[in-house]
Amino acid sequence: MNYSDLTPREVRAIIRDGRMTGPTAGLCPGYAQANLVVLPRELAYDFLLFTQRNPKSCPILEVSDTGSRLLHTIADGADIARDIPRYRIYRDGELDGEYTDVSDFWRDDFVSFLIGCSFSFEAALLEANVPVRHIEEGCNVPMYKTSIPCTPAGVFHGNMVVSMRPVPYELIPKAVLITGEMPRVHGAPVHIGAPEAIGIKDLYHPDFGDMVMIRDGEVPVFWPCGVTPQNVVMESRPAFAITHAPGHMLITDVRNTELKY
Amino acid sequence: MNYSDLTPREVRAIIRDGRMTGPTAGLCPGYAQANLVVLPRELAYDFLLFTQRNPKSCPILEVSDTGSRLLHTIADGADIARDIPRYRIYRDGELDGEYTDVSDFWRDDFVSFLIGCSFSFEAALLEANVPVRHIEEGCNVPMYKTSIPCTPAGVFHGNMVVSMRPVPYELIPKAVLITGEMPRVHGAPVHIGAPEAIGIKDLYHPDFGDMVMIRDGEVPVFWPCGVTPQNVVMESRPAFAITHAPGHMLITDVRNTELKY
Repeated sequence: MNYSDLTPREVRAIIRDGRMTGPTAGLCPGYAQANLVVLPRELAYDFLLFTQRNPKSCPILEVSDTGSRLLHTIADGADIARDIPRYRIYRDGELDGEYTDVSDFWRDDFVSFLIGCSFSFEAALLEANVPVRHIEEGCNVPMYKTSIPCTPAGVFHGNMVVSMRPVPYELIPKAVLITGEMPRVHGAPVHIGAPEAIGIKDLYHPDFGDMVMIRDGEVPVFWPCGVTPQNVVMESRPAFAITHAPGHMLITDVRNTELKY
Repeated sequence: MNYSDLTPREVRAIIRDGRMTGPTAGLCPGYAQANLVVLPRELAYDFLLFTQRNPKSCPILEVSDTGSRLLHTIADGADIARDIPRYRIYRDGELDGEYTDVSDFWRDDFVSFLIGCSFSFEAALLEANVPVRHIEEGCNVPMYKTSIPCTPAGVFHGNMVVSMRPVPYELIPKAVLITGEMPRVHGAPVHIGAPEAIGIKDLYHPDFGDMVMIRDGEVPVFWPCGVTPQNVVMESRPAFAITHAPGHMLITDVRNTELKY
């Protein structure tokens, strides 16, 4: 079956039926994908406030109603407990298991946070002939913990995680302008050029993801990363939380270009 | 005393001392001013979620920590209970009184929401030679209730309120681009040209503010308005709420141009 001809709604239906459980990269090109964090209502205010105070690393696309598994804005009719190919469950901040359906764990006090993903701006970079190295190399983007503090909110605090893409010197302005136009998927870079200035000690050993080649004439460019909110939440050790499994995202009905406005 | 030479911090100190209790229009040119809504913590999650779901009419600039009268981001060290020239207190959604200091009413469970104000983009329009009629006429901007529904959140629901500025046909693209660059102060217009299409029955009798002249060759252009969140909050009849008095805003340390990024 050629998934690339299907609409997001059709792909979500296939995922809901358990017929597709793999990573979502490349599915439904042109449509935004979203990160998931599910928390109990008692932590939801602090987390929503954290995202409001840190919009570059935590750009919210949609927040569910308390207890509801349905989304309305970015993926009308989606069932958040079944329409993502693979979930992770954390207990007291520790990974407890991966599941392709979390209906059995659902509670009336759960709130789902859908967060923008840099997949969207990578498509825009490629269209403008700015290379995206980890896509060329077929691996995951390199990600690093930094010394850049997030603004704390209630129980949540921690530093920003960034993703890195090497960009040729002459294309840096274009890369900044293109991503700066898309603040709902992390927006402009947070740092260009000097990894040590943001607390990255070893550029060649990322904290998450895979290292990629930095060629002569290229500069490492760092963007706020959607791993930040997950990292911050887990450090606060909530008794129970659900997230998507890395690379296994929610495919939304929203086109990347719509996220500019 | 010539207030125009003073920094925002200096003007806030004068306001805090009770030596300035009037409207803030024109004070500290170049610096953003902010709307205020203070609610008890039990309503704060629903309200924060409402603003997240309706960012065009309710662009949040800062949310205080629960119980704290201090701001940190847009006006470092500001005392939210004393640094606004005039406040309104509402009980059960009804106006109960105006005060120049609300310290005596403060409670440990209060959360302050500071919301962006179109004063910021009006300065940008004027700099680009787009006329702003109510400034020319020295009156308040005309505002209207519309039939455009806000996305509800918890106890909060209602329609958008818009402000109207007449713009010459040939300057409409410029007005859209300039304000579209400033989403944290309401951003681009929500409607251009046909008041009846958004439920405005009588353009010449605004629901709030003052009517202004629409000249030949000009079109009424409608922007999401910061009265929306206050209107929506009051319709839900909270037992107790504090807002700024109309036109008596918080003067922030943030320059209008910084709000673009």
